[in-house]
Formats: sequence, C-alpha cells, structure tokens
Amino acid sequence: MSEWFFVLVPIGSILALLFAFYQARKVLSFSEGSALMRKISGAVRQGANAYLKRQYTGVSVFFIVMFVVLGIMAFVGLLTPFVPFAFITGGFFSGLSGFVGMKIATAANARTAQASSESLNQGLRVAFSSGTVMGFTVIGLGLLDLSIWFFLLKYGFYANLAGDAAAQINAISAAMLTFGMGASSMALFARVGGGIFTKAADVGADLVGKVEAGIPEDDPRNPAVIADNVGDNVGDVAGMGADLYESYVGSIVATIALAVSAGYNFGGAAVPMLMAAVGTVASIIGTFFVRCGEQADQKSLLHALRKGTYVASAIIIVASFPVIWFALDCAHFPERIGVYPAVLSGLIAGVLIGFFTEYFTSDTYKPTRELADSSLTGPATIIISGISLGMFSTLFPVIIVSISVLVSYFAAGGGTSFSAGLYGVGISAVGMLSTLGITLATDAYGPVADNAGGIAEMAHLPAQVRERTDALDSLGNTTAATGKGFAIGSAALTALALIVAYIDEIKIKVPDFLFDLSILNPPVLIGLFIGAMLPFLFSSMTMQAVGRAAQSIVQEVRRQFKEIKGLMEGTADADYATCVDICTRGAQKEMIAPALTGIISPIAVGLILGVNGVTGMLAGATATGFVLAVMMANSGGAWDNAKKYIEAGKHGGKGSAAHKAAIVGDTVGDPFKDTSGPSINILIKLLSMVSIVFAGLILKFSLL
Amino acid sequence: MSEWFFVLVPIGSILALLFAFYQARKVLSFSEGSALMRKISGAVRQGANAYLKRQYTGVSVFFIVMFVVLGIMAFVGLLTPFVPFAFITGGFFSGLSGFVGMKIATAANARTAQASSESLNQGLRVAFSSGTVMGFTVIGLGLLDLSIWFFLLKYGFYANLAGDAAAQINAISAAMLTFGMGASSMALFARVGGGIFTKAADVGADLVGKVEAGIPEDDPRNPAVIADNVGDNVGDVAGMGADLYESYVGSIVATIALAVSAGYNFGGAAVPMLMAAVGTVASIIGTFFVRCGEQADQKSLLHALRKGTYVASAIIIVASFPVIWFALDCAHFPERIGVYPAVLSGLIAGVLIGFFTEYFTSDTYKPTRELADSSLTGPATIIISGISLGMFSTLFPVIIVSISVLVSYFAAGGGTSFSAGLYGVGISAVGMLSTLGITLATDAYGPVADNAGGIAEMAHLPAQVRERTDALDSLGNTTAATGKGFAIGSAALTALALIVAYIDEIKIKVPDFLFDLSILNPPVLIGLFIGAMLPFLFSSMTMQAVGRAAQSIVQEVRRQFKEIKGLMEGTADADYATCVDICTRGAQKEMIAPALTGIISPIAVGLILGVNGVTGMLAGATATGFVLAVMMANSGGAWDNAKKYIEAGKHGGKGSAAHKAAIVGDTVGDPFKDTSGPSINILIKLLSMVSIVFAGLILKFSLL
Repeated sequence: MSEWFFVLVPIGSILALLFAFYQARKVLSFSEGSALMRKISGAVRQGANAYLKRQYTGVSVFFIVMFVVLGIMAFVGLLTPFVPFAFITGGFFSGLSGFVGMKIATAANARTAQASSESLNQGLRVAFSSGTVMGFTVIGLGLLDLSIWFFLLKYGFYANLAGDAAAQINAISAAMLTFGMGASSMALFARVGGGIFTKAADVGADLVGKVEAGIPEDDPRNPAVIADNVGDNVGDVAGMGADLYESYVGSIVATIALAVSAGYNFGGAAVPMLMAAVGTVASIIGTFFVRCGEQADQKSLLHALRKGTYVASAIIIVASFPVIWFALDCAHFPERIGVYPAVLSGLIAGVLIGFFTEYFTSDTYKPTRELADSSLTGPATIIISGISLGMFSTLFPVIIVSISVLVSYFAAGGGTSFSAGLYGVGISAVGMLSTLGITLATDAYGPVADNAGGIAEMAHLPAQVRERTDALDSLGNTTAATGKGFAIGSAALTALALIVAYIDEIKIKVPDFLFDLSILNPPVLIGLFIGAMLPFLFSSMTMQAVGRAAQSIVQEVRRQFKEIKGLMEGTADADYATCVDICTRGAQKEMIAPALTGIISPIAVGLILGVNGVTGMLAGATATGFVLAVMMANSGGAWDNAKKYIEAGKHGGKGSAAHKAAIVGDTVGDPFKDTSGPSINILIKLLSMVSIVFAGLILKFSLL
Repeated sequence: MSEWFFVLVPIGSILALLFAFYQARKVLSFSEGSALMRKISGAVRQGANAYLKRQYTGVSVFFIVMFVVLGIMAFVGLLTPFVPFAFITGGFFSGLSGFVGMKIATAANARTAQASSESLNQGLRVAFSSGTVMGFTVIGLGLLDLSIWFFLLKYGFYANLAGDAAAQINAISAAMLTFGMGASSMALFARVGGGIFTKAADVGADLVGKVEAGIPEDDPRNPAVIADNVGDNVGDVAGMGADLYESYVGSIVATIALAVSAGYNFGGAAVPMLMAAVGTVASIIGTFFVRCGEQADQKSLLHALRKGTYVASAIIIVASFPVIWFALDCAHFPERIGVYPAVLSGLIAGVLIGFFTEYFTSDTYKPTRELADSSLTGPATIIISGISLGMFSTLFPVIIVSISVLVSYFAAGGGTSFSAGLYGVGISAVGMLSTLGITLATDAYGPVADNAGGIAEMAHLPAQVRERTDALDSLGNTTAATGKGFAIGSAALTALALIVAYIDEIKIKVPDFLFDLSILNPPVLIGLFIGAMLPFLFSSMTMQAVGRAAQSIVQEVRRQFKEIKGLMEGTADADYATCVDICTRGAQKEMIAPALTGIISPIAVGLILGVNGVTGMLAGATATGFVLAVMMANSGGAWDNAKKYIEAGKHGGKGSAAHKAAIVGDTVGDPFKDTSGPSINILIKLLSMVSIVFAGLILKFSLL
C-alpha cells in the first residue's frame, strides 16, 4: 500500500473541525432571547468557566508532576524521550475537547430556549447543532493528535527506522500509546470531578430547595439552581466528551500497535485511522438527515435522531470494505478481508447495546414500568427492584460483547493466527466508535435541552416553550441512555484492545519475556481478584465523594435561605456564585483520591505481582468493571424514568406516596448513573494505559 | 506412609457424630417451659418440618432427573458408573445436615427461652449446645460420606488399581468430586429456598404487621409471625449448614484430587482428610472453653465464644505439623513441610476475614456508626452510604485471600512445581475450614437465640428474660457476621481449588489435551466476562424471587386481618399454617430458576466455548462472585446494625425520621445479606462442580 493514504487522516481531522466550526457559527447566529435569559445563561456560562478554570489549574499540577516523573523515567532509560510530551498532548487535547464542548453547550442553552419559542423543530436544530459541535470537535481533535504524532514520529524522529516497517510501527505506537494515558488521566478527572459537581449540586438543589423549602425545580430563588445547570454541562458534556475522546483515540492507537504482530504492518496501521476518517465523513452526512416536521411528536423526534445514526452507519458499512480491501492488500491476501466482518460486528454491537440500554431504562418498555409499580410498596421495594433490574440487564451487553469479540477474532483469522484475531478485536472497537461524531452529537444535545428547560422556567417563558423543551429533554434522556450504553461498550472493547497492546509492548521491550498468562497461575489469578475488586472500591470512593460534596452544598443553601432577607419572597437575589464555588472546590478535592487509585493500583500490583499479575488485574477490572458499569447506569436510568413516569400521572402522580418512593430511587440512582458508573469506563482504560506506560519500570523492579 | 492413617477419618466422623448426639441429649434434657411456650415452639417446629418435607420432595424430583441424566451419561461412557450414586449421596448427606441442624434448632428455641429465665449463662449453654449439634453434624456427616466412598472405592471398586497409586487416587477423586456436585445442588436449593422463605416471611410480617397494623414485632396476633420464626430456622440454620457442608467436603475432595499431580499420592490425599479429623477433635476441645459467668455482659459472652474458636485454632496449629510431617514423609522430603505454612495461611485468613466483616458491620465500629448518621438525611442517603460501605469493604477480604493464595502457593513449592503450589492453595482452604465444627456452632446458635426471643415475647415471659435473649441475639448477629465472612472466604478458596481440580480432571481424561488458558485467549476472555456477569444475574433472580414471594404473603396477612374476626382483639387465633404454606410454596417455585441457571450455565458455556471458556467463566465467577457476595453481606449487615443502633436510642430512637430511613436500609439489606449474598457462595462452587461432572460431555461435543 502506498503511504499517501495516511494523508486522509489529517484531512478527516480538518473536515471534522471545519464542520464543528460551521455548526458553532450556526448556533451562535441564533438569538439568545431576552435580557433575563441572557443573564441566566451568562451565569451558567460563568459558573462553568470558573469550574473548568479551577479544574484545569488543579489538573495541570498533576500533569506537571507526571511530566517530571515520566521525564526522570525517560532520563534513566525506562521510557523513550517522547513519552512525557505525548502524555501532555493527550491530556491537552482531551481537555480541549471538553472545553470546546462545554463552551458551545453553555452558549446554546438560552438559544435553544428562544428557538423553542418559535417551534419544536427550531429548538431541535439549535440543540442538535450544539451537540454536533461537541461530537466533531472530539473526533477532529482526536484525529489531529493522532496525525501530528504519527507524521512527526514516522517522518521525523523515527525516520531512521524507515527500512524496517515493523520496528518503525512498534516505535511509533509505543510513543502514541502514551498520549492515551494523558487523555485517560484527563478524562478521569473530567468524569469524576464533573460527576461529583453535577450530583452534589443536583442533590443540594433538590434536598433543600424542593423538599425543605417547597419551591419548584429550576426556581431562580434556589441558590443552587445555577450550580445545578452548570453541573449538566461540566458533568454530562465535558465529562462525556473527554471519556469518548479517550476511547476513540485509545482504540485506534491500540489497534495500530497490534498491526505488526498481526503481520499487516503499515497497511494494518492505516485501517483504524482510515476507518476513523471515513467515519468522520459518514457522520457529517448523517447529521443532514436529522430534521423533523413542525408538528413532530417525541416519537418522530427520536426517529429523526436515529435516522442520522443509521445513515452514518450504512455509509461506513459500504465504505469500510474498499478501505480494508486496499489497505490490507486483499487482492493478494484474500483472507485478510475477514477484518471487514470485524468492523461490522463492532458497529452492530454498538447499536444493540444501545437498544438494550433503552429497553431497560425507558418507560415505554416493561422493565421500567414494573419498576414504577414497585414504588407502590415504598422506597425499599423500588430500591431492591431497581438494583435487581440493573443486575439483570447486564446479561445482554455481556452476551453482545462476547459474540462481537468471538466473531471479530475468528473472522479476522484468529483460528490460524492469534495476533491477527486480536487485531480483529481491536478493529471491532474502532468499528463501534467510527460513528462517534454523530453518536456523540445526539448524546451531547441532551444536557443542552435540559438547560434550555431550566432557562425557560427561570425566565418565565410561556408554558408552551417549557413543554417543547421538555419534549427535547425527555428525548435527551433516551439518547443519553443509548449514549451511555455505547460509551460502556466501546470502553470495554477498547480496554480489551489495550490489554493486548500491553502484552505486545512487553514483547517488544523484552522479546524473550517468559509469559505465564494462564488463568491458574497464582499472580494472574490474584490479579484477577484485585481487578474484580477495583471497580467496587472506585465506585465506593466516588459515591462517598458525592455524598460529602452534597453535604457542604446543602449547608450553604440552608444558610442562604436563612440569612438572605427577601430571598423567598423574590425581592433579593440568591448568591449563585458561592454555590458554584463550593461545588467546584468539593469536586476538585474529592476527585483526587479516586484518580490516584486508578493510577497507583496497576503500578503497585505490577511491582508485587509482575507483568502476569498486571494482565490478570486488567482482565478482571475490565470484565467486572463492564458489568458493574452497565448495572449502575441501567439501575440509575430506570429509577430516573420510573420517577418521570409517575410524575406523568401514574400511581397518583406528583406528591403521592409512590412518587416519594420513586424520588428516593432517583436520588440513589443519581450517583450510580452520573458519577460512579461512567467513571468506571475510564478507570478500566486508564488502568491499561498506566500499565503500558510503566511497563519498563515493572519489568525492572517487580518482585515476581 | 502406611495406610492405617486413613482409619482416623471415620474415627473423626464417629467422634463428631457422637459429640453431636451427646450435645443433642443435653439440649433435650432442658425444660421446654410453659404449655404456651411448648405450643408456640411446636408451631414453629411443625412449620419448619412442613417446609423441609416440601423442599425435599421437590428437590428429590430434581435429584431423580439428574440421576437418570447422569445414569445415561455413564451408560454411554461419558462418566464412570459411580457418579450417579455419588451424586445422590452428596445430596442426601447435605440435606441430612440441614435437617438435623434444623430439628435441634427448633427443639432448642423454647428451651433457650426457658433457660434464660434462670440465667444468662444457662441460656447461652442451651443455645450454644444446639449450635454445636449443627456444627458437629455437618463435619461428622461430611467425614462419613468421605470415608464411605474413599474406602469403598479404594478397597472395593478400584482395588484392582492398587499397584498404581496415582491412577487409583485419580479414579477415586474423580468419583468423589461428583458427590460434591450433589452436595452443591442440595445446598443451592437450601440456601436459595430458605433465603427466599425467610425474607418473604420477614418482609410480610413487618410490612403488614408492624407498619400497617401497628402491632409490635413477634406479636402472636400477626399471622406471619410463626412463618418469620420458621424462616430463621430454614434459612439461617438449614441453608448455612448445607452451604458449609459443601465447602467442607468440596475443599477436601478437591485437594485429594490435586495430590497426584503434586507428586504426593496417598500421603497428599491423606493430609486434607487427617486435617479434618484433627480439626474435629480440636473443635470438640474448643467447645469446653465456651462458658461465661452469671454476671456476664455481651462483651464477655463474645469473649467466651471467641475463646472456644481460638483454642481450637491453636490445637490445629500445633497438631497439623506432625500430621503433615508424617503424611508427606518430610523426613525424606524436607521441602514438603512448606505445606504447613499453607495451612496456617488459610486459618489466619479465615480469622482476619471474620474480623474485617465484624469491623464493617458492627455498631461498635466507625463504619456502621457513620452509616447510622447518614440516616439523618433520609432513606436515599443511607442507601447510598450502605452500598458504598459494602463496596469499600471488599478491599480487605480480597487482599487477605490474595496474600493467603500467594503464601500457600509459594510456601508449598509453587516456585518449582506449579501443581505442588496449587495443592498448597487447596490445603489452605482445608486449613481455613478445619475449625468448622466450632465456627459453625457459634454461628448456628444465633437463630436459636433469635427464636427464643420471639417465644419469650409471644409467651409473655418477664421483661428480664427478653433482655437476656436479646443479649444472646445481639451477640448472634456479631457471630453471624463473622460466620458469613468465613463462609464467603472459604467458598472462594474452595472454588479456586475446584477450578484446579477441574483442569486436573481434563488432563486425566485427555492427557494430551491442548490447553490455552491464557487470559487473552478469546474463549477464556469471553468466559471471564460471562463469569463476571453470572453472580449479578443470579443475585437479580434471587432478589426478584424474594419480592414476588413477599407480595403473596403480604396479601395473605392483609386478608387474615380483614376476614378473621377478633384477631386484632386477641380473641381469635391467626391462621399461621397458611402463611407458612404460602412461604413454602413461594420458595419452592422461586428457587427453580436460579438453581437451573447455576447448573445450565457451565454446560452451555462449555458446549460453545469449550474447556478453556469454562475455565475462564469459573475464574470470572469466583472473583466477581466473591467481591459481590462480600459487598452484599456487609452492606446488609451494616444496615441491620445501623437500624439497631438507632433503636438503641441514637438519632431520636424508635419512630424518628432517622429510624424510618434506617428501616428502609434494613429492608433493602435483608435480601442482600440473607438471600442473594450467601447464595453466591454456593453458585461459585456449584459452577465448578457441574463443570467437573460434565467435563466428558464438553470434551466430546463443544464447538470450540
């Protein structure tokens, strides 16, 4: 294969970024509405900026420390000199993805509310366009980072290896995997910090405002109301963006790393990057199919969003065939076309996991309706039923991922070559993520619609507007559910690819390393136990963090109600900024311990149990983390929608005993679905990334 | 080593059974109290008998079907002809253990109440003696089953192999592993069925009696009150007994199976059996140290129980050294004495896991007190904190088991011989379980004390009596917590030993079988994912089962309150039998699906993914199941004690908002700690057992 192919990757990146820019311009061309709306939106924007500024300041300390640590390791020869720099760029671009997404989301909220006062379709257009900016920024920056490093390493630093393709790719992928660790670390801070912020604010606003003071949701008298709206942006938008940036880049780099042992060299390295480039174009085309009539109901809105994703998928299905055919030179090696079904299996798995997530969490299906029924016998039964629902729902994603792994492994030639089969597994992750541009767009639009509803409420817009934003928001919950399933599924596949890349790295570093990865080898087995425990430990830490952060915001809201005269009467303004500040500080403080757990565990396990033990730990954490993340996401989603189902009038509606029980379920579900569950996605990838980067250290100093 | 050593095993069995008989006589020599007490106790006994009769009838259908299936498999040559019979005896003895334990428990409840009216020490004596009957019946019957089959196979059916020790042991252990599957199946039915019964009755009695009708706990007007007391016996006594019977026998047989590949032959087969025999004597001696003064407070009561366990442990520590020295001929092979530290690591791990379980679930320590504090902000926060506590608490048992596995593996020679190391892991499980006689005694005494309290209440005994039984009961909660930790830890180690025995079985069946147990081999990896999911799926099924069974009992109690005139006034009797009957039928119906899941999963996975896939599944289920079981047990235990802590006067005491929130936590915790959590112990062992028995089928027909 001639190498001009690689030029398509930066082209894809530029296309994505241009499209994001075009969409951003479009969003900004809409009116932001009345002065009051601008003021509210401004407060949210200001809060979100303050949060991100604080977060990036705090995180930069971590990055500087890590840069020094990695620098020292590079200096003593445990790492190549590019690693510290790659680490920094990965973190930078991941952070930038979150930043841009949040900027546009906070710019779009009032505009969506204003557009909704014209028509539902206009509202959808603004909200979806802002989601699009996020989606394409993520993939554009991902491909940019990939391109820069790829070209820099291939034609610059490692040009001397040009004669030995295998050695060159190995050197390139080893350096590039490091920026995955940078991206993972940043993503973890974003997800955990954002998750803590959003839920602390949410709980604080609900517990004191709604329950104690008895004022409605999104009431401007509630001092935590702005923090609550900021939370939607920093948690759901910035956190989700950083998470998927990391899966996207991670799956591509891991697959590149596997290209050599699979025997495909540069052709094999090209496939994941080209698939991503093709996916960019397909996603752009898909966005043009997202439109609805003025009289659209929720069903046709959902249909509109789905259509975009399906069109993009169809294009990828068609276009990836020639890509693989040419890149892998299938004319001469016809068996290599087995990589194509691997792509399909990933794509289909993504859609199916999304479907089952929706089935278990949407109130249009039986499970959530039955969950709502269990609220009739009180909070205890709805909790038991919800946990039970979440646990049961893990069956399907596990089966789907299992089939996808099997199909991609054997289709890609796993029967004759182990490495070729594993390359296929990596490609299936890339296939699943190839539609990321549009998938993320449909997902990131939700928080914007949610914010728009809040602004409509606070700015006293006509009831009809709130109805429309509610329709958009409710749809956003559905797409958020599918988006979450997609994020978890792709994280699991990416983590698997990274584990294989880890083994590959060890083999490159120490060609005659004596692996004993047998599941019965005690270090592997013990690693497996520790790995199975880590997601539980990590979830416990993030849930406790939410609790502590929520406590401090509860006290502040109570204080303001007591001390600010005229607040309840509406004659004095609440001090929103202090609430935002408290959430920000709480999130910053609380995110440190869980993040360090993710980074220290693989190093500690490695130093004691060695490479085999680390591999066991990674496999255990990926398997159990996947199951636990699905459970937490689905239990939480189902509780949320069961509550909404009751609020829509079932079982006595708002204020009934059933509703009160459902609120308990929803409150328990909040940290499940928005903090702990999604953070596990990143944890499992970060563990692999850290293991890869610190492989040299472990090889040198481990006990076993 | 001369073979007369083996004779010590049946001697140990007879000693244990004689001691159990002696203790039973002692219990029965106490007075059962007034006519009313005898009547109440009779009703509980009758209900428990009715339940067990129904259960054994239902289960016998399953055993007959399995007998036929195994018979056909034996007929076509997939199994040896002993397998179906061994399967039946395993089930029979496991069931018998539960039956005897329950018989004595239901005989001891009124006697404990009556003895408590004399003094606390008398009460403790009766209750503990009845627990002793249970404990020694379990180990006595376990050793009996082992002895019968061992001698029958060694000197009867396989006497022709006497010239080839290795072949003979392999043939013997293969047949004996089958009775493990029989025991597992029976234990699963007992744990799941009993767990469903006890929680359905508990919830029914509380929800309608306490909450709706407003009558106190254990009030004779409550139609579900007898069912509730029956539940303590069928769930906590019979279920726990069958569970630990199975761990006990399973760990011994698995270690025997590993003796050949470790190179120890009959000496190695003797060690686990002799350790069990030594443990029997040690446990008997230990029981004589359980006594307290008349003025004993709870602390000295606990001290009394602990002393018995510590004495027994100390004896085993001393006595197991010569056992290993002679059995493994360490005079000639000094390195073999490394098996001794393996025993110690198991024993110490058991004690440590028990300690951490107590730390996380007892209200004398910080975690449960802080959990009680979180009830101040309502039911949602106590649920989140409780789940978080349970998740966090998994860290310690995982570390303890990990260290125990590492120590026993390397001490027993894993550095030079893989098989010798794994034999050490098996021995550590045997070491942990060697104190079972007395550990189970301290555990099984709890439900008796609980029942005694109920009878004291219903029979209107003086307040002082109830205070004493409450002190015994509260102590029972602590020992139940340590007992649960012990059950989970030993189940995990036993399951590990069984996985290794499984691989050994395959090697014996197909000596040149091409294993690829690498954790990266896709069937292993997928097996791992499926295995990680199974405990979640299984827990979901058991929790839903409790919910459904509880619904039907709620309706029945409501019906009786409505239809039976004079019930509330105390002029008419409630229809206790119908409530017992409904719980019984509910439990029978609901236990089928989870049990079948445990049996079918390994066969289905095996037929598709083959031996490697099954091994991955077993490892995944053991690791995740262990973590999930610990989490559920500790969350549940902590909620229970947080509620009791509040009831003792903290945060407003009974009736306060905090108390109401704590009740929600306790209700959620009930199926966690008494149904789903403990059932996972059996699930992980059953999966291995089924895999072993159906290994021939899988080898012949699997796809991969």
